[in-house]
Amino acid sequence: MSTASLISQDTIVALATSPGANGAIAVIRLSGAKAIAITNAIFKGKDLSKQASHTVHFGTIRDGEHIIDEVLVTLFVGPNSYTKEDVVEISTHNSAYIIERLITLLIKKGARAARAGEFTLRAFLNGGMDLSQAEAVADLIASNSAASHQVAMQQMRGVFSNQLKKLREDLVHFASLIELELDFAEEDVEFANRDQLKALIEQIHQVISKLIRSFEQGNVLKNGVPVVIAGKPNVGKSTLLNALLNEERAIVSDIAGTTRDTIEDEINIHGVTFRFIDTAGIRHTEDVVEAIGVERTREKMKQARLIIYLFDPTQDEITAVQEQIEEVQSLQIPFVTIINKADLLTEEQRAAYAVLNPLYISAKQQTGIEELKDELLNQVNLSNINTDDVMVTNIRHVEALQLTQQSLEKVLYGIDNPITSDFLAMDIRQALHHLGEITGTVTTDDLLENIFSKFCIGK
Amino acid sequence: MSTASLISQDTIVALATSPGANGAIAVIRLSGAKAIAITNAIFKGKDLSKQASHTVHFGTIRDGEHIIDEVLVTLFVGPNSYTKEDVVEISTHNSAYIIERLITLLIKKGARAARAGEFTLRAFLNGGMDLSQAEAVADLIASNSAASHQVAMQQMRGVFSNQLKKLREDLVHFASLIELELDFAEEDVEFANRDQLKALIEQIHQVISKLIRSFEQGNVLKNGVPVVIAGKPNVGKSTLLNALLNEERAIVSDIAGTTRDTIEDEINIHGVTFRFIDTAGIRHTEDVVEAIGVERTREKMKQARLIIYLFDPTQDEITAVQEQIEEVQSLQIPFVTIINKADLLTEEQRAAYAVLNPLYISAKQQTGIEELKDELLNQVNLSNINTDDVMVTNIRHVEALQLTQQSLEKVLYGIDNPITSDFLAMDIRQALHHLGEITGTVTTDDLLENIFSKFCIGK
Repeated sequence: MSTASLISQDTIVALATSPGANGAIAVIRLSGAKAIAITNAIFKGKDLSKQASHTVHFGTIRDGEHIIDEVLVTLFVGPNSYTKEDVVEISTHNSAYIIERLITLLIKKGARAARAGEFTLRAFLNGGMDLSQAEAVADLIASNSAASHQVAMQQMRGVFSNQLKKLREDLVHFASLIELELDFAEEDVEFANRDQLKALIEQIHQVISKLIRSFEQGNVLKNGVPVVIAGKPNVGKSTLLNALLNEERAIVSDIAGTTRDTIEDEINIHGVTFRFIDTAGIRHTEDVVEAIGVERTREKMKQARLIIYLFDPTQDEITAVQEQIEEVQSLQIPFVTIINKADLLTEEQRAAYAVLNPLYISAKQQTGIEELKDELLNQVNLSNINTDDVMVTNIRHVEALQLTQQSLEKVLYGIDNPITSDFLAMDIRQALHHLGEITGTVTTDDLLENIFSKFCIGK
Repeated sequence: MSTASLISQDTIVALATSPGANGAIAVIRLSGAKAIAITNAIFKGKDLSKQASHTVHFGTIRDGEHIIDEVLVTLFVGPNSYTKEDVVEISTHNSAYIIERLITLLIKKGARAARAGEFTLRAFLNGGMDLSQAEAVADLIASNSAASHQVAMQQMRGVFSNQLKKLREDLVHFASLIELELDFAEEDVEFANRDQLKALIEQIHQVISKLIRSFEQGNVLKNGVPVVIAGKPNVGKSTLLNALLNEERAIVSDIAGTTRDTIEDEINIHGVTFRFIDTAGIRHTEDVVEAIGVERTREKMKQARLIIYLFDPTQDEITAVQEQIEEVQSLQIPFVTIINKADLLTEEQRAAYAVLNPLYISAKQQTGIEELKDELLNQVNLSNINTDDVMVTNIRHVEALQLTQQSLEKVLYGIDNPITSDFLAMDIRQALHHLGEITGTVTTDDLLENIFSKFCIGK
């Protein structure tokens, strides 16, 4: 662990709420030993240095004689704060001018502008949360569905960390016994019972395997299910997307405000996000000349976890449809065949198409949409996910778990083969190292900078 | 005063901070008799009903067993709150999903979504501030320069209200004496000394005249100085605008964030905002065929408080320039003549152009820009404004003051002429009525709805 360069005694300041003109109030946050003294120097009201933690005080912020704002100041005396340091939150009127003046003034009085994620970094460095919990804070803020929210919340609250901690403790226990053997190497004793060790390692291996397997679903819950709607031009792809989106839009209230833009091509079905990948090129798949376009489309389609293949029976012959379906099938990605404009089908057509086992919808008439949603959920097999189970959602964690597994497998091999205790000890230490990387027991400046620089400023 | 229909016993809820994905925290605010009980019903932590005002409490918000977020809850027990009612502020992680879930849950538990400005409306109805102060809250949030900020701050803190209150008290005193005369009408007594009354009315009239005159400057401080940059195509209008804007952009920090878009064509010179009006049509003024375009341009130019007339001496003969200047002069709006590309001028040219008394700049080389800024400030005659003086910035207030003046003038006429006390009393009451409209002593539902509907939700 070498985080010396990231530990800073500065008192940091940043806007903690979203910028933008549509709010009534804004909150500016300070953290550090001088947070209260710096605020007190520009605050006219009660003497903040004499107030209890977790209290709120009305007063004015002044730059000399000039009143910048009437504010509410909330005090959190460390370690009873997010960062475990003294924290001050100043609630101002939401004016960009006031916010800028106030932050400038606080900096003039001795604070420093916070870097991205620096408040949460301090929470981690000061022992307020472990690294996977800190990462979950960012996931929580980004969560936009019931499932992603629950997974992040669980991780933030330490459920994942606690499971890892338990595994670590068991491993540490055996590691220490084996290290003890090393001290008595000449006497050839075995403090660590090899059968017990093997049973333990196998058990840990099993738990970690389950965690690694959970990533596929966890990742889907966190980032959404990538879906491609394939089909020839004018079969009703965007009408279908709108039919799916429209309902969503009715649910997404005004509160989402400016964030709505970013979820334009996402829909939320019973708490699971489906993310639609734009494959403008798909419409040209039948055009042999545009080979590059086709290839690009295929590449995009490969990113999908699910393909919706849509066709219009009033345009296409069944043989042509079957050909296209075969092409999509070659990608080996789960897919759903959908007949649009089903209301225009004759009985004969319906009978002929039955061989494709399609879903019948009318995007325009909005019929069959609910059945399609059920089928989407069904296809990604999330209906039986218990979000109360610990789920890995972070690629960094999966990689660390995979490295842990490799070390554990070496340990298992070592137990069954004539390997000396010092190699066993080394492999166990290696496993512990990788497990520790997840929660930040083991970490480096680079890793921390990489993680926290992705946070927003003020968090 | 008839505001019965606006008084509501509901407990209201809204997001108080800006929506958007770039913040760390969001604040949801409740106000009303049940604010604490409703929050308490979904909060796991301390029993909020037993906590003191102005204290903050950490805990979780739960929907049944499901944790929505870890939050900080701040309590303000009425009347020690913004609205004078019980107020609760819930500080959550800034996730649109969490915000929506939480507000939905609070509504399910008995709160109602707040209407625009409803918190401030309650502050007004419950006596926390008068109407002009409430209006200043919105002005303060919208303020984007030192001057507009200071004027709004002063108004919010009641400096304007206090001045009006003083005028009202004096008038009320005399009104009551005159009303007394009416009770004794048959006895023909004069309780109110007519000379004193006249002196008082004249004094009030003078103060109000000054307030009305302050509007021109106040409005400029609040809304910015509308400026038109006129000139033929390619004389460097947008280069000049950029030269002015570029410096501004360096000053506007990242904090302004999403608001920056809206100030794209505004610059701030020593705390005064100059707002540039787009007159795309100006470039066609010499084209006789486009008569409509010319007319439109002239209409737009008439909105300006200042016209910058820019020309390029390498393109234009001095006689052509003089012609154009005469055309602009006919609008009778202050204007500044500027020679762009001054670095390319010969000595002879410079001597010839001196008759126009121009400013010499090079928009491209960024020379003369500071002098231009000084001249802009000089032209709008704001350099000698004392923003500590009470300044009227609201058109509604000016109109009410003008109506007050008319009534006062009737009173003055009545004193000097054989008008009976009951007519005098009526005119004084009328003057009081109009003064009262400003601070909301006299008001109607329509007026309040009109004012508060322009607020954002959550304020």
